[in-house]
Amino acid sequence: MRVIGIDPGLTRCGVGIVEGTVGRLPTMIALGVVRTSPSLDVARRLVELESGLEEYFNRYAPEAVAIERVFSQHNLASVMDTAQAAGVAALVGARRGLSVTFHTPSEVKAAVSGSGSAGKAQVTQMVMRILRLEVAPKPADAADALAIAVTHVWRGGATNRYAAAVAAAKRR
Amino acid sequence: MRVIGIDPGLTRCGVGIVEGTVGRLPTMIALGVVRTSPSLDVARRLVELESGLEEYFNRYAPEAVAIERVFSQHNLASVMDTAQAAGVAALVGARRGLSVTFHTPSEVKAAVSGSGSAGKAQVTQMVMRILRLEVAPKPADAADALAIAVTHVWRGGATNRYAAAVAAAKRR
Repeated sequence: MRVIGIDPGLTRCGVGIVEGTVGRLPTMIALGVVRTSPSLDVARRLVELESGLEEYFNRYAPEAVAIERVFSQHNLASVMDTAQAAGVAALVGARRGLSVTFHTPSEVKAAVSGSGSAGKAQVTQMVMRILRLEVAPKPADAADALAIAVTHVWRGGATNRYAAAVAAAKRR
Repeated sequence: MRVIGIDPGLTRCGVGIVEGTVGRLPTMIALGVVRTSPSLDVARRLVELESGLEEYFNRYAPEAVAIERVFSQHNLASVMDTAQAAGVAALVGARRGLSVTFHTPSEVKAAVSGSGSAGKAQVTQMVMRILRLEVAPKPADAADALAIAVTHVWRGGATNRYAAAVAAAKRR
């Protein structure tokens, strides 16, 4: 299964594409970041994000989408921006009939490091080991996106049967 | 100026279309609600919302978009859903080159009733008077959407010069 992991954000939206199956070491296919212009208003940045993400979907044809679930942080305005970015990412995936699953940060940490409270450095370290990378993926948003994709592969992928059935029908 | 006001939401997204200029009584063009299926997952509901909103944009060709800004509420999960819905609404508008402006609930209350702390009933009452409606617009989400559109008209519409320039260029 090829999974696109997305760490949503307006300034930097991390993208990591991974291929693998439950119980095996997955392989990294691609990683990157979609950036949008801070000088534009939020709505126009969402349009830039949409087309940036579309390019990754077109180029790498993922079969499932895994997005980090946004939680309340200190800065309410930035949470809202991130939630709107997550919404656009979910839309882009679902519009293609792909399953879209949200994973919480602690689910991601637990899946790749064994501890839901692992630090950022520890998660990056584990992502490097799991994907046999010689250098740390950069920027951090892309590393997080890879961790989200790995989590999704290891949790058994599509839990949404409807989406999985739609995706299967489209591939026929 | 024809404005589409949007009260974002996944279960019910209010839509109100109003035409007018600063300092005059605006006219209601249309109102409605886009509903999405609660049985679907969030991503697929965002796809339904996108196509529902597209219909309103296609049918009524608004020149500007006004969306209620989402604030933190008691239920964090529902705030995130609403923020994602707001993101999709902003995307749909901005993709067409329209200006997209967010107004806070208190800006909307102040604009239509003169008080930023007006109650729901008072806002509905004022919307009815401003738009010369004989019956209260229903459901409440649609009434809120009309209030947002009226606010936008009265605040002078596009404050985003870039978006306004793009929209003007497209109309040429």
